[in-house]
Amino acid sequence: MATPKRDTYTPQSLLEVAVAVFNERGYDGTSMEHLSRAAGISKSSIYHHVSGKEELLRRAVSRALDGLFAILDEEHARVGRASARLEYVTRRMVQVLTAELPYVTLLLRVRGNTGTERWALERRREFDHRVADVLAAAVAEGDVRSDVDGRLATRLVFGMINSLVEWYRPGGGAARDTEVADAVVSLVFDGLRAPGTT
Amino acid sequence: MATPKRDTYTPQSLLEVAVAVFNERGYDGTSMEHLSRAAGISKSSIYHHVSGKEELLRRAVSRALDGLFAILDEEHARVGRASARLEYVTRRMVQVLTAELPYVTLLLRVRGNTGTERWALERRREFDHRVADVLAAAVAEGDVRSDVDGRLATRLVFGMINSLVEWYRPGGGAARDTEVADAVVSLVFDGLRAPGTT
Repeated sequence: MATPKRDTYTPQSLLEVAVAVFNERGYDGTSMEHLSRAAGISKSSIYHHVSGKEELLRRAVSRALDGLFAILDEEHARVGRASARLEYVTRRMVQVLTAELPYVTLLLRVRGNTGTERWALERRREFDHRVADVLAAAVAEGDVRSDVDGRLATRLVFGMINSLVEWYRPGGGAARDTEVADAVVSLVFDGLRAPGTT
Repeated sequence: MATPKRDTYTPQSLLEVAVAVFNERGYDGTSMEHLSRAAGISKSSIYHHVSGKEELLRRAVSRALDGLFAILDEEHARVGRASARLEYVTRRMVQVLTAELPYVTLLLRVRGNTGTERWALERRREFDHRVADVLAAAVAEGDVRSDVDGRLATRLVFGMINSLVEWYRPGGGAARDTEVADAVVSLVFDGLRAPGTT
């Protein structure tokens, strides 16, 4: 074991370490001992900051959830034609996923074994329903196809967006991030088919 | 611990138990003791069937990979216009995922810590490249849009298809399975937008 370092952690920097360990080992597979070793400070130093690993999980998934829910309060998500709102939300979801990658990754891997995990799953479902409502409104306005069940379409679109956590890595620069967001929006709304062909 | 039952396992029925445990606990988090408890037979009985948990993993992911690669040998995946081949492969991937759900779920969760896991990741990449080649051919033939990078498009399409393992549950009947496959093919090729709108 490395020599314990002086505890210079802030709540945020300790959270970053914890999220990295949770994503590497799984939340269930992470002990306070693992967190202590990864942070290089004693368990009691960690308890000085937080009540335990569940509080770290709650803070981490809250950061992801707050980022996602904040999208729905933005003007372009609230005002205008539903299909334009859905497109806006899709693009912003990609941006939040890439900007908050470790936090969203953790959120998407939550299983539901503890109260905090079940709460996170419940909040995720609530977000999904809010987006599904926008999709349903776009169907009602005639801009989104009605031949695919809305619940199924929402799941598949979320599946495509959320798959970014499997392969997206930051550091490609703003142009790359725009390319990724543009690609998701293009495929979600218009699919692979070349315009004008059938 | 339950009374050990008589070992009436076949290689296939033991594999089914092992895959369920791997998917529940993660491959890394599963010990021979966990497998023994889940199967209700002793560890030595398990060793009578297989050399260890890595052999069970190899058999399980092989089943998923064999199912996926077999698609590429089917006539409609080999002959005809690339966009039609891509559509065929997309539909058949959904069918293999839903038919072999626990095996494909395990394959998609493989991390790469052991030789077998790294081999599985390598085979997955090979399959992805084979499908990406069909997509590139469809772009060259003018049927698939060229304004989205092919590598990015392949990842996003695989993301949508693979997300089925997160929510699809068998038992909905053949009509439901057809609905899911139709929805995936529709969204992948034509997106959410209602035909005739922009």
